[in-house]
Amino acid sequence: MQIAVAKVNKYATSESGDTLEVVERPNGGLSVVLADGQTSGRGAKTISQMVVRRVIGLLAEGVRDGAAARAASDALFTERQGKVISTLNIASVDLHSRTIVLTRNNPAPVFVCANDRIDMLSEESIPLGTSRNVRPLITEFALEPGLVIIIFTDGISHAGERRGNPMNVSAVLRSVLEDQDPSPQLLADTLLAHAVRLDENRPADDISVLVLKVTSRTGDNVRRMTVRLPIEGHSRI
Amino acid sequence: MQIAVAKVNKYATSESGDTLEVVERPNGGLSVVLADGQTSGRGAKTISQMVVRRVIGLLAEGVRDGAAARAASDALFTERQGKVISTLNIASVDLHSRTIVLTRNNPAPVFVCANDRIDMLSEESIPLGTSRNVRPLITEFALEPGLVIIIFTDGISHAGERRGNPMNVSAVLRSVLEDQDPSPQLLADTLLAHAVRLDENRPADDISVLVLKVTSRTGDNVRRMTVRLPIEGHSRI
Repeated sequence: MQIAVAKVNKYATSESGDTLEVVERPNGGLSVVLADGQTSGRGAKTISQMVVRRVIGLLAEGVRDGAAARAASDALFTERQGKVISTLNIASVDLHSRTIVLTRNNPAPVFVCANDRIDMLSEESIPLGTSRNVRPLITEFALEPGLVIIIFTDGISHAGERRGNPMNVSAVLRSVLEDQDPSPQLLADTLLAHAVRLDENRPADDISVLVLKVTSRTGDNVRRMTVRLPIEGHSRI
Repeated sequence: MQIAVAKVNKYATSESGDTLEVVERPNGGLSVVLADGQTSGRGAKTISQMVVRRVIGLLAEGVRDGAAARAASDALFTERQGKVISTLNIASVDLHSRTIVLTRNNPAPVFVCANDRIDMLSEESIPLGTSRNVRPLITEFALEPGLVIIIFTDGISHAGERRGNPMNVSAVLRSVLEDQDPSPQLLADTLLAHAVRLDENRPADDISVLVLKVTSRTGDNVRRMTVRLPIEGHSRI
């Protein structure tokens, strides 16, 4: 199993309103939690961090993904009375059931690629905090080699729209998947780079792309993680 | 800034007693939190997950690293009356102060490499939960290109000891650092592989290696993360 993330801020903002974190599940496996708070900058960050922290805390206690999403939604609605909302995606790799469970409260679709097919999960889905009793959409996939799942925030779906040149996620995915077995990082980077280009190198929103890929077992038993965190120089504008 | 992790379980155990998680700091930057619970397997995992979750929750609220470590220690001592202990390392990249802050409650040393020097931070340090009022050791470094920090659990320090062939971390680091600008993942993988070899491919303990490296700014503004999670096959022994 390989997981890759690529993330940039909206142009000229120092802080992303998107928050993404990874947590180990108490019964094995891990969950990736991605939230996009309304608006951008500091306020959005506070909301998305609050949502991710709450969801991660519940998952770590063994709460099921759907229940964690509902709890985070109720808490946000109670606190902000529907005035502030946040999208949420949870992708959980469950080593006991040998499945990937996707939980979505996000109008942005999720793409699922397997056996030369690209499917789009685009059922209507409501962000957290919009009302009482917001339901997440939950989809489960067997951990089969070749499965690729692509999740993103609306910085991808809305890229280029202002300039009348909207993003065709499916076409970009297809062009990368034609390569021999692209890495999840290549997929994430290519989608993000394409979106940034459509926004003429000044992203109109925070953008986060998350790719999960199941590959045939090769190599050792070592778990690995790498993180790259660009640090703004004082001399940069 | 690049961060790499390599992690394996003790031989013939399905669960690592080491827990490592990464959390975004509320004022920018991130913290990596690593705990090693006493013994191995399920019980150790419960302890190290509890410690990491508590520390991460506090850091996310803006609590300082040292205070978070003390709080986790007090909670563990209160709950288990000193019968169960856990090591803790926190490495925080603070983008405001432009420093890396290391917090240590772990007898295993930390290595710091800069300007062709390898220094070992090996002041005596007590694990969490041993008594009331356990103090963490805190060390701070400016974010200068070339700085490399290596943190690990005692699976590294004790590798090979049973067979009278103990690990010389400093020598292994020196041999890798002689290469032109090794990636943090290469450093982590090499240390881990060396320890596993000294244990004759049957690690006597869970092993986790965390490497942080500050490089000169090159490339784009994209934050990236990759995770590799080996999945045990049904057919494997």
